Amino acid sequence: MQVEKKDELYRGKAKTVFLTNVENKLILEFRDDTSAFDGEKIEQLKRKGEVNNKFNHFIMQKLEEQGISTQVEKCLSDNESLVKKLNMIPVECVVRNYAAGSLCRRLGVEEGIVLSPPTFEFFLKNDALHDPMVNESHITGFKWATEDQIAKMKLLSFEVNDILVALFAKGDMLLVDFKLEFGVDENGHIVLGDEFTPDGCRLWDKDTKKKLDKDRFRQGLGSVVESYIEVASRIGLSL
Amino acid sequence: MQVEKKDELYRGKAKTVFLTNVENKLILEFRDDTSAFDGEKIEQLKRKGEVNNKFNHFIMQKLEEQGISTQVEKCLSDNESLVKKLNMIPVECVVRNYAAGSLCRRLGVEEGIVLSPPTFEFFLKNDALHDPMVNESHITGFKWATEDQIAKMKLLSFEVNDILVALFAKGDMLLVDFKLEFGVDENGHIVLGDEFTPDGCRLWDKDTKKKLDKDRFRQGLGSVVESYIEVASRIGLSL
Repeated sequence: MQVEKKDELYRGKAKTVFLTNVENKLILEFRDDTSAFDGEKIEQLKRKGEVNNKFNHFIMQKLEEQGISTQVEKCLSDNESLVKKLNMIPVECVVRNYAAGSLCRRLGVEEGIVLSPPTFEFFLKNDALHDPMVNESHITGFKWATEDQIAKMKLLSFEVNDILVALFAKGDMLLVDFKLEFGVDENGHIVLGDEFTPDGCRLWDKDTKKKLDKDRFRQGLGSVVESYIEVASRIGLSL
Repeated sequence: MQVEKKDELYRGKAKTVFLTNVENKLILEFRDDTSAFDGEKIEQLKRKGEVNNKFNHFIMQKLEEQGISTQVEKCLSDNESLVKKLNMIPVECVVRNYAAGSLCRRLGVEEGIVLSPPTFEFFLKNDALHDPMVNESHITGFKWATEDQIAKMKLLSFEVNDILVALFAKGDMLLVDFKLEFGVDENGHIVLGDEFTPDGCRLWDKDTKKKLDKDRFRQGLGSVVESYIEVASRIGLSL
């Protein structure tokens, strides 16, 4: 059956989700919009939607090959992917291998120190509240997820970390940190949703520590999409 | 042996800790200083040191009777208690039975909603960083405590909650939330330290929801020490 795009279901800061004519399938459209600081800084970056769509598809395929269930089914066009419909859990799962970003600000630690074992944090997805850090007792208490779902999200996040640390290491990069979002599929299983792109992780050149991720946009360092393309190229994806 | 006060070891915002001539024993002096908002608001409230010293001793005795190991040995004077020396763990353990204070601000929930089961949060003791919330992975990662110590602190905090919810209920009060601090004694055991007073918990009249704790000071409601004395009286301690 030919997939047809139907009504817009949800418009995020960088992606739009559409209903389709196929049951339990959605279309994710990656836009060129790039945002930071809870949407306070927004710019259009040429080719970013395409780069992130293809990057995400590539990473999700790698994860699927290693046994991680993901939402992605296939690329439909430069900017669109067909994905399974999930009931998204409204928390972000953050794994950190090195200190950077909000961890440094919150805990007063220096950027770049090794976190071993990696830290794991939950953040509530809520721009108005600036995505506050939450813990298991908030998540179960406010019924955002069950204890079993929390345990599964943590386990999967660390599995993803192991797989991707190794993948980026082959391209001489350090996976500093990343955020994942999970959802529940029609069978009640926890599945990796949303995206994995340089918009939602930090990647540094192993030797020079050059930033190759969205910090280039946040910090006004320039060459944002060019860096994303370089990251892709280093792990075997030509864009 | 007569206990003698020696050098000042540490001066907190409302208490001072002194060395003594007895090995592994310290003196806690409860001052009249009352502070809020990371020390931004500070006032002297007459009799508060005495009230908190006696209140703390009373509560710690009740907890000891129920099998919780505490730092307190005995009252030495109106404002001073003799306590065991502990190696304090630099996190605060917060149990909440009802939403109030920072939880409402952080998560956008209404004051007074029931949290069932109660939430449990760790905060790093660091005024300069405004006591940020932390989780187990930060605590073990930065070596503030071990996994076993974390588990024990959580367990003890919930046991204290059960004991004190019942105690304050007898005085027609709701124990809204409270913070505890633990330390490690000379035998490596986790022991309840610091204090339990209306400075570090929230207590509401069961029927009127009148605030009887330090929120009276934070919010400029007046009758701070008078309210602490009323709380004490309701649970059988005449001050």
